[in-house]
Amino acid sequence: MTSTPLSSGIIRSDRQMSDGRGIRYYDSAEVIRSAIDQRPDEGQPGIGELRLDLLTGDWVAMAAHRQTRVFLPPKELCPLCPTKPGLLSEIADTSYQVVVFDNKSPSLTAPSTSWALPLNDGIDTPLTQAAGKCEVICFTDDHETSFRALSLDQIRIVMEAWRDRTRALSAVDYIAQIFPFENRGEEVGVTLNHPHGQIYAYSYITPRTLKMLESATLHKAKHNRILLDDIIAREVKDEVRIIAKNEHWIAYVPFAARYPFEIHVAPLSGVADLAELSDAQADAFPSIAKEVLTRLDGVFGIDMAYIAAWHQAPVREGRDVLRLHWQICSIRRAPGKLKYLAGSESAMGAFIMDMKPEQSAAQLREVKI
Amino acid sequence: MTSTPLSSGIIRSDRQMSDGRGIRYYDSAEVIRSAIDQRPDEGQPGIGELRLDLLTGDWVAMAAHRQTRVFLPPKELCPLCPTKPGLLSEIADTSYQVVVFDNKSPSLTAPSTSWALPLNDGIDTPLTQAAGKCEVICFTDDHETSFRALSLDQIRIVMEAWRDRTRALSAVDYIAQIFPFENRGEEVGVTLNHPHGQIYAYSYITPRTLKMLESATLHKAKHNRILLDDIIAREVKDEVRIIAKNEHWIAYVPFAARYPFEIHVAPLSGVADLAELSDAQADAFPSIAKEVLTRLDGVFGIDMAYIAAWHQAPVREGRDVLRLHWQICSIRRAPGKLKYLAGSESAMGAFIMDMKPEQSAAQLREVKI
Repeated sequence: MTSTPLSSGIIRSDRQMSDGRGIRYYDSAEVIRSAIDQRPDEGQPGIGELRLDLLTGDWVAMAAHRQTRVFLPPKELCPLCPTKPGLLSEIADTSYQVVVFDNKSPSLTAPSTSWALPLNDGIDTPLTQAAGKCEVICFTDDHETSFRALSLDQIRIVMEAWRDRTRALSAVDYIAQIFPFENRGEEVGVTLNHPHGQIYAYSYITPRTLKMLESATLHKAKHNRILLDDIIAREVKDEVRIIAKNEHWIAYVPFAARYPFEIHVAPLSGVADLAELSDAQADAFPSIAKEVLTRLDGVFGIDMAYIAAWHQAPVREGRDVLRLHWQICSIRRAPGKLKYLAGSESAMGAFIMDMKPEQSAAQLREVKI
Repeated sequence: MTSTPLSSGIIRSDRQMSDGRGIRYYDSAEVIRSAIDQRPDEGQPGIGELRLDLLTGDWVAMAAHRQTRVFLPPKELCPLCPTKPGLLSEIADTSYQVVVFDNKSPSLTAPSTSWALPLNDGIDTPLTQAAGKCEVICFTDDHETSFRALSLDQIRIVMEAWRDRTRALSAVDYIAQIFPFENRGEEVGVTLNHPHGQIYAYSYITPRTLKMLESATLHKAKHNRILLDDIIAREVKDEVRIIAKNEHWIAYVPFAARYPFEIHVAPLSGVADLAELSDAQADAFPSIAKEVLTRLDGVFGIDMAYIAAWHQAPVREGRDVLRLHWQICSIRRAPGKLKYLAGSESAMGAFIMDMKPEQSAAQLREVKI
């Protein structure tokens, strides 16, 4: 039972769940987090497989045990609410500010020492352990709210938790890349409505990051400049796709957006990952995050389903060329109409946009906040 | 008004719609297709943009005019049914077997000569014309059926239309890659219920094909063998993921499937594209196609939403290493549950499978047909 002071007066308290999983409470002031998980130890699932898709060179994680995971439970049974009379939830305490805990149905887990990693020499052994870590981050103990509606102080605690987990997971030898994200809305497959995100720590570099690494490396070789710096400079020059800005951050619809409403939020002074953000940058994030998500929900006056993804440089590669940014993609193209990833997108990776980025940027800017 | 004999006694009749778009009738015997499109010429949309996503190096097509396209019209107004009293549809004749016509709301169109193609030299001009062709293929004039329920003879006509269009589009100088596909089911965004597919002819090589090209080229360099040949040899050896076979084709759930129900169908004797199939291979396709889709619908006893995609070698590249295969992906993982492409898949391209390919292959094999 340890407490660790972080920046901005935030304190982390580390605890364990009855089945051995870790849980970390993040609080804006010293709080004693001594509640004990009263549930029986049901054990943890074994490790899954990573299989190499030889056609594309991509790893696919196989997590067969996840098929039975909890699916849209009623509020009274929400496993992300604090524990209360009649409900022993994932969080033993009766209240919390922000918590991060190990996912009960992880796609990726600590490698098993009893399974020697096979060599991946081509078609004969395109298989290894699905090593990594999957964590859940609860943004608040209030079941009914959403990230956008949190106070600036509360978003600052979430940011501190992301930074802290990025630092900690970066120190794990089998972790290659850390990916904090939020899926919001049943349209993108959310199975729990409580405001929460996830952190995937992969033991491999993901396909999109490999591509970004290749592009950024080529750009550096050709121009001796950082790709994202040049992209942001172009957005600033073009102006027409910018939707929000403050002293440390900028938000824009990218020139080649793939989704009807896609927003990138990046620090004006680039860093490789969340751990490298200065405290001043971290402190300036809540206001732009809240503004951007408020604009997004304001476009059609409804809670927009979105995927909000932190792109970070991998832990041990590309840190000199890849830069942190937060990508928010909404699949809603109009009230009652979703953007589906059909043939061209799903099978070919060739995106077709039904609206111009300049048009969605204008709609986002017009929202009164 | 020309008629062209194709293989298997199939005849193609070429006609024009009132707005200048082409329509081709494919019939199993000589039929006079002289019906004239009676609709006024409403003109055709201008060409869209291709924008380069510098972060990933992918082209994104911007087709802003498609936002207003027809969305799930009632059967009486179906634009893919033959013309009948009270309905002037896309097909002027009052019946047809198979037709292929130019899409009214194309994402990609013939390049405009008045717009000089800018050079793509890095960040300054990551923009060009959205050149290409988009076509619609109607599998039958019966609104109420589906591809799976077609007769073997009817599927053979569809196959001939695919081959014929692949040959014709391969001869167009600005076309780099030809992609026939079917989206089936409102869950994957189908906006017209009439049984139909599409053909996208891209002026660029799509992101997934570029990756497949890279993998296949490396494999050839390393082993001096064709990658898909080796993959199929492994599936045959493992046996456990095979779900159907005939003299010329094999169908299997791939070792590293990305979707709960993903099936690949490939000729046993590999070819680069549909145009290279022998008549004997083309003749043997309908029976395995019908079996595979019948097994897919049989798993849960419901019409499964799927994307069925023909992967072909590009027109002028990789024809010595890439091999034709038909990839069917269903996003349904259980009755009432869909597989969503959420954070890991959408933002990172890192797929997480909830069930093992061997398990879905067993379920598909167990279906009584």
